[in-house]
Amino acid sequence: MAGSGELSSGDPRALGKALSLLERGGEDAEALLRRLRPRIGGAHSIGLTGPPGVGKSTLVQALGLALLARGERVAALAVDPTSPFSGGALLGDRVRMSEFVARGGFVRSMATRGAVGGLSAATADALDLLDAVGFPWVLVETVGVGQDEVDVAGVVDTVVVVGVAGTGDDIQAAKAGLLEVADILVVNKSDLPGTDQYVAALSEMLELRPPSPWQPRLVVTRATTGEGVEALLAAIAAHRAFLENDGRRERLRRERAARRVTAVLTSLVQQRVCREEDTAYQEIVEAVASGAVDPYAAARQLLERVAKEGW
Amino acid sequence: MAGSGELSSGDPRALGKALSLLERGGEDAEALLRRLRPRIGGAHSIGLTGPPGVGKSTLVQALGLALLARGERVAALAVDPTSPFSGGALLGDRVRMSEFVARGGFVRSMATRGAVGGLSAATADALDLLDAVGFPWVLVETVGVGQDEVDVAGVVDTVVVVGVAGTGDDIQAAKAGLLEVADILVVNKSDLPGTDQYVAALSEMLELRPPSPWQPRLVVTRATTGEGVEALLAAIAAHRAFLENDGRRERLRRERAARRVTAVLTSLVQQRVCREEDTAYQEIVEAVASGAVDPYAAARQLLERVAKEGW
Repeated sequence: MAGSGELSSGDPRALGKALSLLERGGEDAEALLRRLRPRIGGAHSIGLTGPPGVGKSTLVQALGLALLARGERVAALAVDPTSPFSGGALLGDRVRMSEFVARGGFVRSMATRGAVGGLSAATADALDLLDAVGFPWVLVETVGVGQDEVDVAGVVDTVVVVGVAGTGDDIQAAKAGLLEVADILVVNKSDLPGTDQYVAALSEMLELRPPSPWQPRLVVTRATTGEGVEALLAAIAAHRAFLENDGRRERLRRERAARRVTAVLTSLVQQRVCREEDTAYQEIVEAVASGAVDPYAAARQLLERVAKEGW
Repeated sequence: MAGSGELSSGDPRALGKALSLLERGGEDAEALLRRLRPRIGGAHSIGLTGPPGVGKSTLVQALGLALLARGERVAALAVDPTSPFSGGALLGDRVRMSEFVARGGFVRSMATRGAVGGLSAATADALDLLDAVGFPWVLVETVGVGQDEVDVAGVVDTVVVVGVAGTGDDIQAAKAGLLEVADILVVNKSDLPGTDQYVAALSEMLELRPPSPWQPRLVVTRATTGEGVEALLAAIAAHRAFLENDGRRERLRRERAARRVTAVLTSLVQQRVCREEDTAYQEIVEAVASGAVDPYAAARQLLERVAKEGW
């Protein structure tokens, strides 16, 4: 494993190895993060989220290429909550990202550690690494619309929620959850019928929100042609500038630290307590399965046991 | 709060109150679950999951009505991972469920407890309640395609993954994750163009799976007209019969107990350790935000502190 001294944004192989180390977690990962800590703080991270099929990958590529064209270094993370089962569902996206890579962008698909909360913990660790090695811009793409997305949204600086027109009313409902965490709303595939009405409906929803210091921006794009990508970058820049004012970034950093501690804690507890090879754990699970012990009593018993041994 | 002695599947108001109690969690919820425990074991739960827009709500209603027509008692839970932010995104679904309710079905939207892992813990608790009060059938609908869905799939007896034709390649990729946990695959909205090709593609994917004692069934439906609903019920009955053989339900119960203990444990730890009103917690979070302490050291410190006080 390369020491942090050798890691730089210009060495994709060493970076890939370091990200794998973080993905696996454990003591080596924690040691690497401690070494990187002093170099953290220069990057701006942008999360792109929304339901499948709205063109997030294409948008990430378009944003990435636009930033590269300005001479910026850019890293893109594709975070896949379903991967514990599929083992690499984002391979298609990687192929699509080939132009971005060919022009010097760094791209990486990330899996979870298989633990609840593991996705946002692993993403936060990866963002620290990419920040420390000198990427000023990190794009994070997530698949799906569940709690995972909301969690991952909690670890980036600017949250971009992507939608498209005409995909049925439950999508609107699902989006209601993500709307609350959106700094920027993107209506992609602007050539789709119904785009104007959809934009009008979203504008109305935004106007109905209680006033807040940052009013989410609405941007219409067509990622495949590049239409609207400059406007999206401008909206991102505006949000970044907003964060620098009035100590907002400090407050954001504090909120994020709280979420991160929770995620790390959850991961640690699960890795430590729920070990299939541990016979005491097995016995307690059997007792729950047979109905002899209720799951709450079982959980307390397991926690007491580990607590005695020390964390 | 009504005692468990008064709870029955025929009293929706008392049931609704009991479910709210479970949703809130805490000691009263744990006490209720302990009282219910002896009455658990008769229900068969069916989870319906898949991306937004595939018609899960309509399918739940159609299944529910078909079971009611056979004289069965049925409860339907709509589980919404996005609700900590939207506070009731499934209201639209509730309206759509009106015919099901008018004919005696019990329906309830559930929110998470706001904690990672809280969704599957709360769902498992609700399933225990509905089981104990005498519902032989419980339908569980979830929104989204992330880890939440996979988690919720882990607490039901039969997992039905719903899709529709022609929604782009990333949906296929996302589905690859859910495919692994599917007992039954449904292609809904059979009137959509491309349905035949989609069914063919899914059949091929199923054939490529490694052989297993249960081969997932593929059912084509059009929930709005009721087409395919009887075939879906037959597939569910076949899976239920399969579980009764060779002690499979015992093994399933054991796996589920393990997942449930993990979920409960995670919920307990977060509620206990991550309390915003706790000054020691606040100080540690500040230290992480300022970069003085890394999140792993912070998590260990918090765990040690609570461990001393006892769980």
